[in-house]
Amino acid sequence: MKFCADCGHPVEHRTPPGDHLPRYVCPSCGTIHYQNPKIVAGCVPEYEGRLLLCRRAIEPRYGFWTIPAGFMENGETTQQAAQRESLEEACAEVVVGSLLAVVHVLHADQVHVMFRARLLDGQFGVGAESLEVKLCSEAEIPWADIAFRSVDFALRRYLEDRGHGVEQHHFTTIDFRKPQEHHR
Amino acid sequence: MKFCADCGHPVEHRTPPGDHLPRYVCPSCGTIHYQNPKIVAGCVPEYEGRLLLCRRAIEPRYGFWTIPAGFMENGETTQQAAQRESLEEACAEVVVGSLLAVVHVLHADQVHVMFRARLLDGQFGVGAESLEVKLCSEAEIPWADIAFRSVDFALRRYLEDRGHGVEQHHFTTIDFRKPQEHHR
Repeated sequence: MKFCADCGHPVEHRTPPGDHLPRYVCPSCGTIHYQNPKIVAGCVPEYEGRLLLCRRAIEPRYGFWTIPAGFMENGETTQQAAQRESLEEACAEVVVGSLLAVVHVLHADQVHVMFRARLLDGQFGVGAESLEVKLCSEAEIPWADIAFRSVDFALRRYLEDRGHGVEQHHFTTIDFRKPQEHHR
Repeated sequence: MKFCADCGHPVEHRTPPGDHLPRYVCPSCGTIHYQNPKIVAGCVPEYEGRLLLCRRAIEPRYGFWTIPAGFMENGETTQQAAQRESLEEACAEVVVGSLLAVVHVLHADQVHVMFRARLLDGQFGVGAESLEVKLCSEAEIPWADIAFRSVDFALRRYLEDRGHGVEQHHFTTIDFRKPQEHHR
């Protein structure tokens, strides 16, 4: 952020009085522009024991495999976001189920929220942001070519829980920040 | 948003090509400024059967009662945010436990994530954003003066689950939007 979104004046980066972190502050209109983590919502859609995966047609991680997931929009729930992303990326109608994983991705300022889901009728397609979409048995999952650590985590917990006949939720943290960023 | 945070040029509000929602777009540098829900993280700290509540010294809902909660910062987990808010608002050291509630607050573009917690040593104080902080037995909870619906929801689910000896998590949605906002 270089300019105030409210008045267009150049912003300063400093800790406001009574605060404990540096913020983008407008010296002209006084607005403090807070920056907060964004939510990425997604799901693992299952159909007859197989899981729906998408090969990314966009950066980052072009060509790698992921589950339907993307930035949550204002005005929707996390479940609705996961459902919408399934439709957009895999032309798939899903029924979103239980909470599967919450992954704090500290270097990206993101929280990934993943659910279990059921692919409604076995129908799917290739959305605009995908190169390829397919249903994979557990043995067919391309583990070496999964786009993101959070997706790897979600898929592994999904399969473990399914093997045990349970539906737990799992928290984890991924942190690829450089050391000096920890105390910003 | 009126001005581009990257170049300072006035922004336009329109749907970019290939997108499905209007965004703030800069006609000068081309940056699309997405707006996404913010996470509010909090917890219900318990000590010897009583729950720690704070009376708000800030707007909105000045003078009403809440649990320690606030906007999640970049670089922290939801649990760390809940812990930090307990320290800031109630000078309370807590150990954050299981996930209690996820509340989609659609009219505020917020997702409230609440945890169970244990107040470490029974010590607490009155933080800068609180008028008063106290430990309440179930009978002492000021139900008529709770600041937010999401906090009411979290407290009720906390007590119900405690009564049943379980620690479940609960999703809900609160939507006070005007009708025309649903299709923005």
